[in-house]
Amino acid sequence: MRVAEYDLVVAGCGFVGSVVAHLAAQNNKRVLLLERRSHIAGNMYDEVDLNTGILVQKYGPHSFHTIDDRVYDFLTSVGDWYPFTLTARVEMLGRATPSPFNFTTIETYFEPQKAHALKKRLMDTYRYAPKVTIVELLKSDDPLIREYADFLFENDYRPYTVKQWNIRPEELDISVLSRVPVRNDYIDRYFDDKYQMMPEGGFTAFFKKLLGSPLIEVRLNCDALEHLKIDTENGRVMFDGEELRVPVVYTGALDELFERRFGKLPYRSVWFEFKTLNMDSFQDAPGVAHPLAKGYTRITEYTKLPPQDGRGKTIVAYEYPAEYGGAKGKEPYYPVLTAESMDMRERYGELAKSVKNLHLGGRLADFKYYNMDQAVLRALEIYDAMRQTTL
Amino acid sequence: MRVAEYDLVVAGCGFVGSVVAHLAAQNNKRVLLLERRSHIAGNMYDEVDLNTGILVQKYGPHSFHTIDDRVYDFLTSVGDWYPFTLTARVEMLGRATPSPFNFTTIETYFEPQKAHALKKRLMDTYRYAPKVTIVELLKSDDPLIREYADFLFENDYRPYTVKQWNIRPEELDISVLSRVPVRNDYIDRYFDDKYQMMPEGGFTAFFKKLLGSPLIEVRLNCDALEHLKIDTENGRVMFDGEELRVPVVYTGALDELFERRFGKLPYRSVWFEFKTLNMDSFQDAPGVAHPLAKGYTRITEYTKLPPQDGRGKTIVAYEYPAEYGGAKGKEPYYPVLTAESMDMRERYGELAKSVKNLHLGGRLADFKYYNMDQAVLRALEIYDAMRQTTL
Repeated sequence: MRVAEYDLVVAGCGFVGSVVAHLAAQNNKRVLLLERRSHIAGNMYDEVDLNTGILVQKYGPHSFHTIDDRVYDFLTSVGDWYPFTLTARVEMLGRATPSPFNFTTIETYFEPQKAHALKKRLMDTYRYAPKVTIVELLKSDDPLIREYADFLFENDYRPYTVKQWNIRPEELDISVLSRVPVRNDYIDRYFDDKYQMMPEGGFTAFFKKLLGSPLIEVRLNCDALEHLKIDTENGRVMFDGEELRVPVVYTGALDELFERRFGKLPYRSVWFEFKTLNMDSFQDAPGVAHPLAKGYTRITEYTKLPPQDGRGKTIVAYEYPAEYGGAKGKEPYYPVLTAESMDMRERYGELAKSVKNLHLGGRLADFKYYNMDQAVLRALEIYDAMRQTTL
Repeated sequence: MRVAEYDLVVAGCGFVGSVVAHLAAQNNKRVLLLERRSHIAGNMYDEVDLNTGILVQKYGPHSFHTIDDRVYDFLTSVGDWYPFTLTARVEMLGRATPSPFNFTTIETYFEPQKAHALKKRLMDTYRYAPKVTIVELLKSDDPLIREYADFLFENDYRPYTVKQWNIRPEELDISVLSRVPVRNDYIDRYFDDKYQMMPEGGFTAFFKKLLGSPLIEVRLNCDALEHLKIDTENGRVMFDGEELRVPVVYTGALDELFERRFGKLPYRSVWFEFKTLNMDSFQDAPGVAHPLAKGYTRITEYTKLPPQDGRGKTIVAYEYPAEYGGAKGKEPYYPVLTAESMDMRERYGELAKSVKNLHLGGRLADFKYYNMDQAVLRALEIYDAMRQTTL
């Protein structure tokens, strides 16, 4: 690989890496993009199942949403998107109810008079706020509101969180739920963001547009870390043993970049059991959570994400949480944020700052949970910063 | 009537009159409230139908909504309210669709590929604005958006407006539709206001609470104008021939107060045909508009406003627009705002200002269309102003 021919090296082909590569190519820079997997688009990767013609997202459900005008402007300048409002369900006690929980939930699980009183109490107490958090509800002094909060906590939040993170029920700190909304209305949608949309043709098609410039060379099945080494003593990035004089955007795991010298950063993983079923529709919404089911947390139905005609067939994916690094947990999905892991992230981050030409970004390299729009925004910021300094 | 015993005289028992009376009584003032009709609560009046036990609003559907914290605080300090989100439908071409129109409407009337393209076009064009007006849509240069706008205009807005106001189709100025929203999402609710609620037990029960003080004397079947005369020459209010020295809040028709000396203010009226039906449910929503039906514009189903168990019975009201003053149009409902009528309102208003102790407020006395919350706010303002001057 004659790396000297490029103006920029990018490791990883998810949103951060692909957006930075796109922007650099737009400015006439030559980009080398290395991707460990056999395909582009990172965890957004989707493909058409050949037996059924159904578009399937291989790494779990992705539905785009943002409130950020800049992100929206960028994405719609690259390709076509269409509006798509995600709905979701939770199955509790044999009945499905909207997620986030809303007044329909109250009417599903409480008898009419109590439901009426509860809705009224919620509106009075929270002054018609359209959303409150489950933590606020759990802390309420009002017995009726507490009954509702406890019902949701015992049948959903507690078992779901315990299963998702593999912790003991008594270990659960409710403050981790402090951003989980419960709706005080009948609105049935998973996100409230202004822009909610999907790429025309799917995410892989969109990434092809992002990476379409002849100035971008994508090398699949290529582990960047077999070429890139960090010479921390001299603050240099080495590529195949020689100092790299152009910028590098690294989006892989932060600890692996530094050979885990401060320890291994912890991740939670998930895996998916895909099933093709001979029916038009398996469930009411693209995603249904099953807090009390054995093993799996959620079922995604791909003929609903986006709406597709499977012609009598549908594909579902059962989602199982797993230990990262175990037999099933092959991919690092969710950073496990503890005092210890955040401290470790800090140390790796400090080290990275001292390395010339090195830019980190994304869920793995920043060791942070990003939604897709946050990853795009991060890429826009990285590119802005890079232009002012090294590129 | 020994009017000298009172600190305040109020004419009319709708929201404006009743709220002012309530506030005055709270401040230990003695109030005489005169009402021409045989009941309190003005057009908000509701009563339980004795045959079925169903609560019926006799002057057409009322559902409370406001964004005003002060109005909310006041109303909930007087009585209990519970959350109620009004949904509405429009029936076009034999199918019912949400009102305001939304993406469900598009999916109801356009085939899937065109619906997909149209939703996308709307989102792109209006940058994911959750609502646009039908006037914006009608002015669009985009042929697909225009097709949608024309469809809605021809099948709903035009015939509905023509019927409601009894004008010729070609006479319709689309600017009257400039506040009519069309939704770019799937949200199904008639109003977007933060506070949407109904009084526990109904509106009449709420007005009983408003007027519950022993300091308020309500005289029903008493036409205030048989006692009150305005002596415009000397700027005085006369009551049974003597000068009234306490403030008067007049909420009746503005022109009648001045014996129509500048002419008759024009109103549009409606009347209702009530039917009791032997079924649990007649329609999907409390209100369904029928733009193309003969004569009537809307059907309200009272077992849905609020949700009530009619035990196999339901009551519906067909709503017919009518000329005010004609055989059927007994009540003045909607001020007809024209250059001429607004000019007339101005002249009456100037005259009223020159009269000491006279306060005007409400849909009739201000000759303005008020929602209920606007009437409450007007009453709060009148009372504030009155306290600083005359009361």
